[in-house]
Amino acid sequence: MIQRQKAVILSSGGLDSTTVMAIAQHEGYQLFSLSFHYGQRHSFELTAAKKAALAFHAVKHLVINIDLGKIGGSALTDSIEVPKNRKKSQMDSEIPVTYVPARNTIFLSYALAWAEVLGAFDIFIGVNAIDYSGYPDCRPEYIQAYEKMANLATKAGVEGNNRLRIRTPLMNLTKAQIIQKGIELGVPYEITHSCYDPSPEGLACGECDSCILRKEGFLEAGVKDPTHYVIR
Amino acid sequence: MIQRQKAVILSSGGLDSTTVMAIAQHEGYQLFSLSFHYGQRHSFELTAAKKAALAFHAVKHLVINIDLGKIGGSALTDSIEVPKNRKKSQMDSEIPVTYVPARNTIFLSYALAWAEVLGAFDIFIGVNAIDYSGYPDCRPEYIQAYEKMANLATKAGVEGNNRLRIRTPLMNLTKAQIIQKGIELGVPYEITHSCYDPSPEGLACGECDSCILRKEGFLEAGVKDPTHYVIR
Repeated sequence: MIQRQKAVILSSGGLDSTTVMAIAQHEGYQLFSLSFHYGQRHSFELTAAKKAALAFHAVKHLVINIDLGKIGGSALTDSIEVPKNRKKSQMDSEIPVTYVPARNTIFLSYALAWAEVLGAFDIFIGVNAIDYSGYPDCRPEYIQAYEKMANLATKAGVEGNNRLRIRTPLMNLTKAQIIQKGIELGVPYEITHSCYDPSPEGLACGECDSCILRKEGFLEAGVKDPTHYVIR
Repeated sequence: MIQRQKAVILSSGGLDSTTVMAIAQHEGYQLFSLSFHYGQRHSFELTAAKKAALAFHAVKHLVINIDLGKIGGSALTDSIEVPKNRKKSQMDSEIPVTYVPARNTIFLSYALAWAEVLGAFDIFIGVNAIDYSGYPDCRPEYIQAYEKMANLATKAGVEGNNRLRIRTPLMNLTKAQIIQKGIELGVPYEITHSCYDPSPEGLACGECDSCILRKEGFLEAGVKDPTHYVIR
């Protein structure tokens, strides 16, 4: 029996990373799903990440506690207010307050550590250069630099046999294209969670940048949005 | 009054990082000292890191809990045995079991996050290419790649004003040269802790790679070794 290659999937339980998980599964990888508890204001995304790991038969789902709250500096971990009802054009104009300093760098570093221990050479992350909402650590040049560093950081790089790859299958897709891809691969989007500022019951606010991008994506894709939004 | 530049110092409480702290202080930086509780077998190095932060008047000393134990794969966090009584030549020949996968990458990533929040552009780390004992993430090409990635990862990089620098003042020094430098700058080496496998009371084993490099360093520097070793 041919042993399937292992891949580490960074999973936030959101629309993007759950689609990435479906893509990695479709490519035939054994999935090792990695999520973080990083002082988020809510834990709905961790619940969604767990559901995604189950839905795509991940071999293992690991949740790591990281203490970004001690470092601060973001609306997602601090008491800074999450912006609401911004247009897409406003989102692109500057780095938003929801940016968590060095978040993807920290996430990828844990994924790298786990990949090295597992003997995996592929790390999947759902970053996107089109709808990236102004985050510096979602740009392709950042990912390329990370991959280069990662190969120098690890045994795999020193031995030079296999090369670590940071896989970003969503990089050049619009939100609508991501959703279309996911629908083809059978992603159960009703389990995913994107909202930055959900209600205490876990309903999406419908007004934060993440909700707006998601709503517009479903609309543009011509797919019914299965998200439960707060009724105002 | 001129505001001194801030620097984040990765501090393990060991000989190298404590010397780095002295160098950064000597260069006039405001020090922000960063240590990690990462499932080490003992906490003597965290006690030493705290003493170092006090000794060099760090503005703040932050200890972050990171859960490398969940990931495993190293003698420093797992129940793999720490090698003893190896010669320096043996240490260089391969990546040792004390290598913690992606450790420096994870440490630097937290430092990067904190630097961004503080508005610091210098991150000091005590890596060394000479006595690096076979760790891939202590090589200069790794540090250069990290610095490039870090500048792309952050607001500082996007805005292009100030450039983040990963400072490695010990990179090309032998252990003896590091000690000589530290003595010049008044490093109280008696507070530092290097041993991978100390006694329950915190005495150094004298036999692990780290102890051997340290002992030989003091000998070669012609400086009395203030370390308390286990008496066998």
